[in-house]
Amino acid sequence: METKKSSAKHDNDLSPLQNRIHEIIFEADTKAGKFFDVVLLIFIVVSVAITMLDSLTIDSKRINNWLYILEWVVTIGFTIEYALRLYCVNKPIKYVFSFFGIIDLLSLIPTYLSIIFAESHYLTVIRILRLLRIFRIFKLAPYIKESNLLLISLRNSRRKISIFFFFMILLTTILGSAMYVIEFGVNDKFSSIPESIYWAIVTITTVGYGDISPVTPMGKFLASFMMILGYAIIAVPTGIITANIAKEYKMENLTTQSCPHCTKEGHDIDAKHCKYCGGRL
Amino acid sequence: METKKSSAKHDNDLSPLQNRIHEIIFEADTKAGKFFDVVLLIFIVVSVAITMLDSLTIDSKRINNWLYILEWVVTIGFTIEYALRLYCVNKPIKYVFSFFGIIDLLSLIPTYLSIIFAESHYLTVIRILRLLRIFRIFKLAPYIKESNLLLISLRNSRRKISIFFFFMILLTTILGSAMYVIEFGVNDKFSSIPESIYWAIVTITTVGYGDISPVTPMGKFLASFMMILGYAIIAVPTGIITANIAKEYKMENLTTQSCPHCTKEGHDIDAKHCKYCGGRL
Amino acid sequence: METKKSSAKHDNDLSPLQNRIHEIIFEADTKAGKFFDVVLLIFIVVSVAITMLDSLTIDSKRINNWLYILEWVVTIGFTIEYALRLYCVNKPIKYVFSFFGIIDLLSLIPTYLSIIFAESHYLTVIRILRLLRIFRIFKLAPYIKESNLLLISLRNSRRKISIFFFFMILLTTILGSAMYVIEFGVNDKFSSIPESIYWAIVTITTVGYGDISPVTPMGKFLASFMMILGYAIIAVPTGIITANIAKEYKMENLTTQSCPHCTKEGHDIDAKHCKYCGGRL
Amino acid sequence: METKKSSAKHDNDLSPLQNRIHEIIFEADTKAGKFFDVVLLIFIVVSVAITMLDSLTIDSKRINNWLYILEWVVTIGFTIEYALRLYCVNKPIKYVFSFFGIIDLLSLIPTYLSIIFAESHYLTVIRILRLLRIFRIFKLAPYIKESNLLLISLRNSRRKISIFFFFMILLTTILGSAMYVIEFGVNDKFSSIPESIYWAIVTITTVGYGDISPVTPMGKFLASFMMILGYAIIAVPTGIITANIAKEYKMENLTTQSCPHCTKEGHDIDAKHCKYCGGRL
Repeated sequence: METKKSSAKHDNDLSPLQNRIHEIIFEADTKAGKFFDVVLLIFIVVSVAITMLDSLTIDSKRINNWLYILEWVVTIGFTIEYALRLYCVNKPIKYVFSFFGIIDLLSLIPTYLSIIFAESHYLTVIRILRLLRIFRIFKLAPYIKESNLLLISLRNSRRKISIFFFFMILLTTILGSAMYVIEFGVNDKFSSIPESIYWAIVTITTVGYGDISPVTPMGKFLASFMMILGYAIIAVPTGIITANIAKEYKMENLTTQSCPHCTKEGHDIDAKHCKYCGGRL
Repeated sequence: METKKSSAKHDNDLSPLQNRIHEIIFEADTKAGKFFDVVLLIFIVVSVAITMLDSLTIDSKRINNWLYILEWVVTIGFTIEYALRLYCVNKPIKYVFSFFGIIDLLSLIPTYLSIIFAESHYLTVIRILRLLRIFRIFKLAPYIKESNLLLISLRNSRRKISIFFFFMILLTTILGSAMYVIEFGVNDKFSSIPESIYWAIVTITTVGYGDISPVTPMGKFLASFMMILGYAIIAVPTGIITANIAKEYKMENLTTQSCPHCTKEGHDIDAKHCKYCGGRL
Repeated sequence: METKKSSAKHDNDLSPLQNRIHEIIFEADTKAGKFFDVVLLIFIVVSVAITMLDSLTIDSKRINNWLYILEWVVTIGFTIEYALRLYCVNKPIKYVFSFFGIIDLLSLIPTYLSIIFAESHYLTVIRILRLLRIFRIFKLAPYIKESNLLLISLRNSRRKISIFFFFMILLTTILGSAMYVIEFGVNDKFSSIPESIYWAIVTITTVGYGDISPVTPMGKFLASFMMILGYAIIAVPTGIITANIAKEYKMENLTTQSCPHCTKEGHDIDAKHCKYCGGRL
Repeated sequence: METKKSSAKHDNDLSPLQNRIHEIIFEADTKAGKFFDVVLLIFIVVSVAITMLDSLTIDSKRINNWLYILEWVVTIGFTIEYALRLYCVNKPIKYVFSFFGIIDLLSLIPTYLSIIFAESHYLTVIRILRLLRIFRIFKLAPYIKESNLLLISLRNSRRKISIFFFFMILLTTILGSAMYVIEFGVNDKFSSIPESIYWAIVTITTVGYGDISPVTPMGKFLASFMMILGYAIIAVPTGIITANIAKEYKMENLTTQSCPHCTKEGHDIDAKHCKYCGGRL
């Protein structure tokens, strides 16, 4: 409690107990805090494993009962943890609407909802998103830095990618409908326009399940055209993201520092002297 | 009508009524114009939804009748709108052959054609292209700018992509025919050369429906070769487009500064003298 | 015959007749030469179309007979053309072993061979490669330039791509065999190691026919791993080729010229003055 | 033995016999050494071919017996070679845990293990990895250089790729489970969550076997979303690796010039002064 950080928290009108809990649950700097986080990670993995096991058709009633009990035990544990988080933060509302706050809440709902809708409890696998805390807990700083770099690249590509998707929706709608008209009456797999649009997406993204495939020569011709089109336009999002990542790389490697002697810029991060005039940077 | 813009239009020999309609239908600056455009967008979406619903096999005769009536109502509405557009522009011919003019006309034809060919009315989904007006209506300027950037990249890649497609046609024709000869007599799925070319396209683009697949060892060997080939040559259009997008990005980084001596633009950021006339920037 | 070009050919010990034929068959500068080439292109397309039609199962004996006769007529025509080409060039051997010389010969063989092996005549579709002459005939210079750029990029990627393929062969062999051992006795689709390697290639290239697919949990796990691997390593050839194309682009846009005043390099092709000191280049 | 290299080895306390064997087995400089290596490569290829042949269902008992004997002969040969390698190196432990040492050992185990588990002997195909020695034996220096370049690019992409895979696991787990809930009770192909995750991977990587595919409208909608997502996010690893390869290329373009003052390397081509000590290059 003597640390600067803790005392700073006292200003937030939290009781010593609240501070203590906050340290354990929210931070990973102290021994107790790290221990709590590691136990939490293990429980998340166990919980997801239980849900998966539960989905397998097991004929033993005893195992099924055990899995059922275990799921409730874990869920109640997570509920208590969620309540403690709300209790020990200064501004609970802010936590509730934070990224992890939303995930933590969504992880609880499916089990409680399963009292009404039996199948909903399988949605508890969303708990797996809580594992994202792993980067913070183990201080994987270089990974966090690289994640941010990736996120910036994706954010910068955001508008171009939106335009691309808007275009994809128009394209698959029109091509899917055209296919519906072409295969109409011959191939009952193309049973409706939405179904044909689904097929168009399966084709243009080169997934190609084969559950629906054209049978008329004209249909096969249009399908061939769509495949080659899809094969080529995959280049568009790739090009956008690659160009953005390459840009981030360049940004990363250059200082914005200009030489105090000749004012030239564009020096490498490890440069100590100006590469143009030799003056000390 | 007192605005500068409107008076400018008066020069175009349009009556005040024509000008008023033009403002509402073609522009989104005034309240009435924006309202019209939003209503239009909604009707387009509704119209496409009707066509999709209609394609689903619904057993209720009453619903089918309603959908039939609705489609005609929407189509007649769009026809009136098209007529008004023709009426209120100065040069109707120019509008008719513009991008949106063609789309607007194509959106009407399928319904009228359905009197003769019943299935053709499904082609009304082409109306979805009219949604492209959305960028202009909501003044999504940054999106328009980025679209243009993408279009320029694609236009610059045009020749290389054409060569690539020409090469793909030659390649799939030859490999498809070879496969036909190899699987002949053993696998009746490879029933003709066009069918085998269709299969070659399905394979080389990595779609892989599985409706046709080789059964002879030799055929599987050739197919394996084609897959790896297809897997590698997808890199070609991707490389072309990526390089072009990266180039556009660099262009964006050029100064917008024009030379004070010769007024030319396009100078590098580190340029101190105009590269055309040598004058100091 | 008075042109400089023709007289230059006289030095090659060709008779006037040989020169005249050479001009018509090999060149596209004169009216007769261009006419010959266009007719040739049409015949090539017709010939390929005949072969494709022939492969379709048509029940009419009359049509089949006509197609048979037509194929022989076209083949004999091409044979005469080939003989003329040999007759009118100065060094026939050089032509025979040139790219087009080999293609021209290969286009003839399948029909003659069909006397012995009936199916071989379908291989005449290789004639389609003769269409590559189209670039030369119509003087599509910018396309030729861009083709060369692409070819240089691919040639520079040659070694890296070879290493990549060598690695792919090792990888698919090992993973295919592992899959064979895993699915052995349960899934008879994985009937042998070569079959399993074929499946591994289908999977890793993301083609995914679905004619063979794993059924054991362990097999599905390994398959999932292979898919994600394949999904990621497609990035390798793409990265190699993209980097090479981007390099060619840069090469294309920069002169190697250095400024005579300040000796700096890296000037744009359209630059007339040094961008650093303003001196005339 | 008079060469400098050999005498250097005498310092390693190896007997002349050990040195002689070392020269033959480990090196490819002498005639005997090269001969040994080429024979070894042939035997590796033969050995893999035997295993593949063996996996084909052949009805002849005689051939099967021959293949069985051949496999044992080759394996015993490789075992002797392995023993000799251990005998003639100075530090056997270092060889055992080297890349090739591990491969050499793994190549032997499956045959011996097949006494207990009959199928395991198919795993001898791992011997194919021994072919990697080919680069060293034929001194394919440019290939080795390019391999290293590729490996560096991949190693630099390592963290970003790990993040990408971690994200893929979370994504496919959640989407697979959602699909399980959606298709539950209607489509028994989605029999459990692990099965659904397998399907999600098949879909998002655009493999698309088609052994499992959605049947409900909601399932098809989610599947469509996943395909487009997968189609777009393939851009991420591609972008990462492309940017890294492009970076390596630039590195290659750096002068190999080292500073005459501080001997450091890695200067840009346009650098006139050492960026570390400022001395003139």
